[in-house]
Amino acid sequence: MSERTSPSASDSAHVAAAREFFTDLQDRICAALEEADGTARFVEDAWRRGEAATNAQGLSGGGRTRVLRDGAVFEQAGVNFSEVSGARLPGSATAHRPDLADAPWTAMGVSLVIHPRNPYVPTTHMNVRFFQAHAATSERNWWFGGGFDLTPFYPFDEDVRHWHEVARESVAPFGDDLYPRFKQWCDEYFFLKHRNETRGVGGLFFDDLNAGGFERCFGITRNVGNAFIDAYLPIVERRKATPSGERERDFQLYRRGRYVEFNLVYDRGTLFGLQSGGRTESILMSLPPLVRWEYAYAPEAGSAEAKLADYLKPRDWLVER
Amino acid sequence: MSERTSPSASDSAHVAAAREFFTDLQDRICAALEEADGTARFVEDAWRRGEAATNAQGLSGGGRTRVLRDGAVFEQAGVNFSEVSGARLPGSATAHRPDLADAPWTAMGVSLVIHPRNPYVPTTHMNVRFFQAHAATSERNWWFGGGFDLTPFYPFDEDVRHWHEVARESVAPFGDDLYPRFKQWCDEYFFLKHRNETRGVGGLFFDDLNAGGFERCFGITRNVGNAFIDAYLPIVERRKATPSGERERDFQLYRRGRYVEFNLVYDRGTLFGLQSGGRTESILMSLPPLVRWEYAYAPEAGSAEAKLADYLKPRDWLVER
Repeated sequence: MSERTSPSASDSAHVAAAREFFTDLQDRICAALEEADGTARFVEDAWRRGEAATNAQGLSGGGRTRVLRDGAVFEQAGVNFSEVSGARLPGSATAHRPDLADAPWTAMGVSLVIHPRNPYVPTTHMNVRFFQAHAATSERNWWFGGGFDLTPFYPFDEDVRHWHEVARESVAPFGDDLYPRFKQWCDEYFFLKHRNETRGVGGLFFDDLNAGGFERCFGITRNVGNAFIDAYLPIVERRKATPSGERERDFQLYRRGRYVEFNLVYDRGTLFGLQSGGRTESILMSLPPLVRWEYAYAPEAGSAEAKLADYLKPRDWLVER
Repeated sequence: MSERTSPSASDSAHVAAAREFFTDLQDRICAALEEADGTARFVEDAWRRGEAATNAQGLSGGGRTRVLRDGAVFEQAGVNFSEVSGARLPGSATAHRPDLADAPWTAMGVSLVIHPRNPYVPTTHMNVRFFQAHAATSERNWWFGGGFDLTPFYPFDEDVRHWHEVARESVAPFGDDLYPRFKQWCDEYFFLKHRNETRGVGGLFFDDLNAGGFERCFGITRNVGNAFIDAYLPIVERRKATPSGERERDFQLYRRGRYVEFNLVYDRGTLFGLQSGGRTESILMSLPPLVRWEYAYAPEAGSAEAKLADYLKPRDWLVER
């Protein structure tokens, strides 16, 4: 699919369109979460790293970090927008794309992690992102990535099927192959090798999305971002008033440990962000407000807690069984 | 320094001597910690990974994982001994030692992490380890590593100086150069780049210790392991009854988050263990029983909590000032 304008003009148009969508998505998600919570509000930290403070790689950027804390429903929710630019792509990033070597670049996205209070409400994560290299020699100088995944402590089949149905519908207009592909990618990405379990019941994950042109890929990414609230809030509504006590809280805090393990040991976004001098507080906002570890913990056989293990392996949720 | 016996006979003697020291050290440390705690006891998990369960790298091994929990003084203390053998060294481990390529090997050590209850008592870590490749072509086919470091929440100069004095004395019989070298290595190793701070006030760290022959290196390692209790327990005794409340507890839990960040993002032993199929529960016993994260936390200027930052940069503790 050819672009009608010059590469640099289309580059700028891409960046502007993505920025407009991402910042608006952040606004809409924050508003919906505030309404669902009913009591707490997001507080925004707008931050900027000026040119004066750029590092050796010529990085500069800024963002809007938003945190809601101590809500009635959400113990902590972080919804971040950030946009970072670099003077030239490092060699490691362009080994397979020599045409982009040394090009200036822009990366931006929205990333959120929600830690609900009630252990019957799942934790969740959503991210949509866009990368643009400013290289006049190539029109394939951008890509999208994104997805959302769900991490229940006390899972309900009904919730998991709803989650995956919304996920499937969100990408269905772009082909029936996308959901199974992105669903499998999600299962593979959010996997804790040292625990031999997935982070949760999955959802969607995609990266390096460029095939079919900018409008198509942007459309897929928009649909995924827009679907998040429809995928998550009905589950929150169904479970937020479920009675629970110390036992469920203990299990929730224990399982949150797995979230920390995944994010700090495996998550490429987190590790790349920390290593490349990203804003630590914004990156680590994904970590839960309270967590516990317990040596050699094992749930009682047959207990509600033991049931979770069955959900932490890839399964086809939308096949009639 | 030449060995009088054949390489394979000296290999076995090395392994047996190290094993005897390490298991005895584990016993002595556990006994001393139980006595200091006064109420709780260590529980042992003896584990073995049989040949049948070895993985593609031909790994086998076992250990004695010991945990003390919910003590009067120690909220959690883990003191592990483990010994692992491999059929052949992977290429990545022998890039600089082609003479050891494909050699069978044995690695063993004692590793401990203590999370005290009272926030005025520092967290601490100690590790001593030995590596032996069974390569008849080389006499330089073994090395020792080890050290201990201290992570206070509310630091006292008196405690930090005592800690470093014991550290210095432990290696002094082997040369005045060792303490400054191992102290600097410790400051550099236990550093959180994304927080721009050390994990604590340091201590000793060394690796690849081979110079001067087996007896000397074993002697250094023994002295470091043996010094740990003398370095740590006097600090515990001085601080364990300090009155503290919710404020100090909150700060302790928050700072424990940094311990998790270091161990999961940077610690080579942890990451290598998890990636190579080590026993996850034993490796992650270093993680604290309860932890919290708080977005953009900053202590009040001039507060006791704000003082800690001054201690999280390398400083020469044994110079008169």
